[in-house]
Amino acid sequence: MRMLINVPESVVSDALRGVAAAHPDLTVDVENRVVVRRDAPVADKVGLVSGGGSGHEPLHGGFVGLGMLDAACPGEVFTSPVPDQMARAAAAVDSGNGVLFVVKNYTGDVLNFDMAAELAEDEGIRIAKVLVNDDVAVTDSLYTAGRRGTGATLFVEKLAGAVAQEGAPLERVEAVARQVNESSRSFGVALSACTTPAKGGPTFDLPPGELELGIGIHGEPGRERRPMMTSAEIADFAVHAVLDDLNPTAPVLALVNGMGATPLLELYGFAAEVHRVLRERRVPVARTLVGNYVTSLDMAGCSVTLCQADEDLLRLWDAPVRTPALRWGI
Amino acid sequence: MRMLINVPESVVSDALRGVAAAHPDLTVDVENRVVVRRDAPVADKVGLVSGGGSGHEPLHGGFVGLGMLDAACPGEVFTSPVPDQMARAAAAVDSGNGVLFVVKNYTGDVLNFDMAAELAEDEGIRIAKVLVNDDVAVTDSLYTAGRRGTGATLFVEKLAGAVAQEGAPLERVEAVARQVNESSRSFGVALSACTTPAKGGPTFDLPPGELELGIGIHGEPGRERRPMMTSAEIADFAVHAVLDDLNPTAPVLALVNGMGATPLLELYGFAAEVHRVLRERRVPVARTLVGNYVTSLDMAGCSVTLCQADEDLLRLWDAPVRTPALRWGI
Repeated sequence: MRMLINVPESVVSDALRGVAAAHPDLTVDVENRVVVRRDAPVADKVGLVSGGGSGHEPLHGGFVGLGMLDAACPGEVFTSPVPDQMARAAAAVDSGNGVLFVVKNYTGDVLNFDMAAELAEDEGIRIAKVLVNDDVAVTDSLYTAGRRGTGATLFVEKLAGAVAQEGAPLERVEAVARQVNESSRSFGVALSACTTPAKGGPTFDLPPGELELGIGIHGEPGRERRPMMTSAEIADFAVHAVLDDLNPTAPVLALVNGMGATPLLELYGFAAEVHRVLRERRVPVARTLVGNYVTSLDMAGCSVTLCQADEDLLRLWDAPVRTPALRWGI
Repeated sequence: MRMLINVPESVVSDALRGVAAAHPDLTVDVENRVVVRRDAPVADKVGLVSGGGSGHEPLHGGFVGLGMLDAACPGEVFTSPVPDQMARAAAAVDSGNGVLFVVKNYTGDVLNFDMAAELAEDEGIRIAKVLVNDDVAVTDSLYTAGRRGTGATLFVEKLAGAVAQEGAPLERVEAVARQVNESSRSFGVALSACTTPAKGGPTFDLPPGELELGIGIHGEPGRERRPMMTSAEIADFAVHAVLDDLNPTAPVLALVNGMGATPLLELYGFAAEVHRVLRERRVPVARTLVGNYVTSLDMAGCSVTLCQADEDLLRLWDAPVRTPALRWGI
């Protein structure tokens, strides 16, 4: 065990205390596990709430702030937050204009956000929901019916967050979120397993010298295992898998994402290969984001998410954002 | 080997191709290994140039842009760049107002920046240099006479970069850089070794269940090895080591830095403990930055850097910056 923790039981609470200490722009309810923009509810603005199991940081807490999420609810590591958290978050951010729940497609998250929506609606809050299910690797998985939600969550939260910040009504914010999800696809690759605090060891068995193509962000099985491949070969496999499903007709936003333990030096080399494949497939790239954004604790590996972006989505991408993990223009 | 690379020989060039693809604000000379602000030389502005071995990303290439560095020169992994690179960078960014070299205190970097300064001065470029030597762990180390340069490099590059962006003359930019270095101290801890592409395996031996207190960013030996400690105990040790040397009399900027493979979830928990120790020692914290900024490839672990900041340095910290890894206000 080589973890920087106190005890496994307090990992999430400890992290939330750190978020509170480091980010005075956020209000952190450590006990109830809700991270909220300090200025919430923002008058005349639709609220955006997301959440999910911890272990994918900076998703979601690192995306709370102006131009992105109004609140995030972290669950235990790789475990859905509970409906009470989500309903509490909705109440904290609703200005009367309604709240959009951004839900990654995992069975626990889906059920709990459904229950939270009922709780919030009982309190008179209008709720819309968008399901993120961008991972083309497999249909149905360990915790999912249908496709898993992964890297596109960042695009949904940024772009829907930007249109909400502009003052769009709930129906429009929901429509943008849905458009972004439908315009996005992802594919991930593991070069190592990840270690959960509770288990203290690898969560699955991936022998050195092998990789898993199509991995999920909790280490759920992908399409196949192979002997180690080069960065160029991995980019070929991942980008073709995404493009064959997406067939973009407009320039794309590209997220070249690290799973947590892969050095930035390697991720940038991989970004070069992703761009090469996109050039070969004649897909123009409008913007590229490289880094560890939708992670799986200390897993080594990477994922590629592409989002087909019209002029309106590009404008929303460039709009100001001020969160711990994504910040520009302000 | 679980690396996302093509061949070890091309790791740095591959990464530079990725930086070029992802960041249109930067001009990347892949062959000569120089990363430059696209708008360089900026009229009437002192140029800031840094560089060092690769493997510490986002340092330094991720800090090139408005309000921070004008250029960076990456060497091979854990190997100093050569004088030609540095002189080329100086020529690319000099507007006639001179250039400051920010040099981490490693013997190779120091010698090569000295030679580069001579080369640049021969071309009529005024050069000033500041040596960063903030690591309190040990005096003299594997590649260093005196103290090593680590996390304070980020503060030097940000704060001197901000005053340069304001149009300050070379003497003032150099003075700020020197003040920041003298006001900063760091201490690092390894929970695992790191793996260089050339070696393909751990660069030193750190058995599971042990940690190394006072590690260098290339895995150079620190003060001592101990059985695994909690996050709270590590924060106690690291922050006390820094404060006993720094004795701050003003609020501090705090960098809670990951070595590369430690999940953000754990780093934020560690940030909470760092804040606790600072509270106990009655040291006010003005700003906190949490993340992987001065890394050591895939090493698990963390470091703490504190910089005593007067009002002027705080203003420079908050000034706009627009680089791949640090960006706000613009």
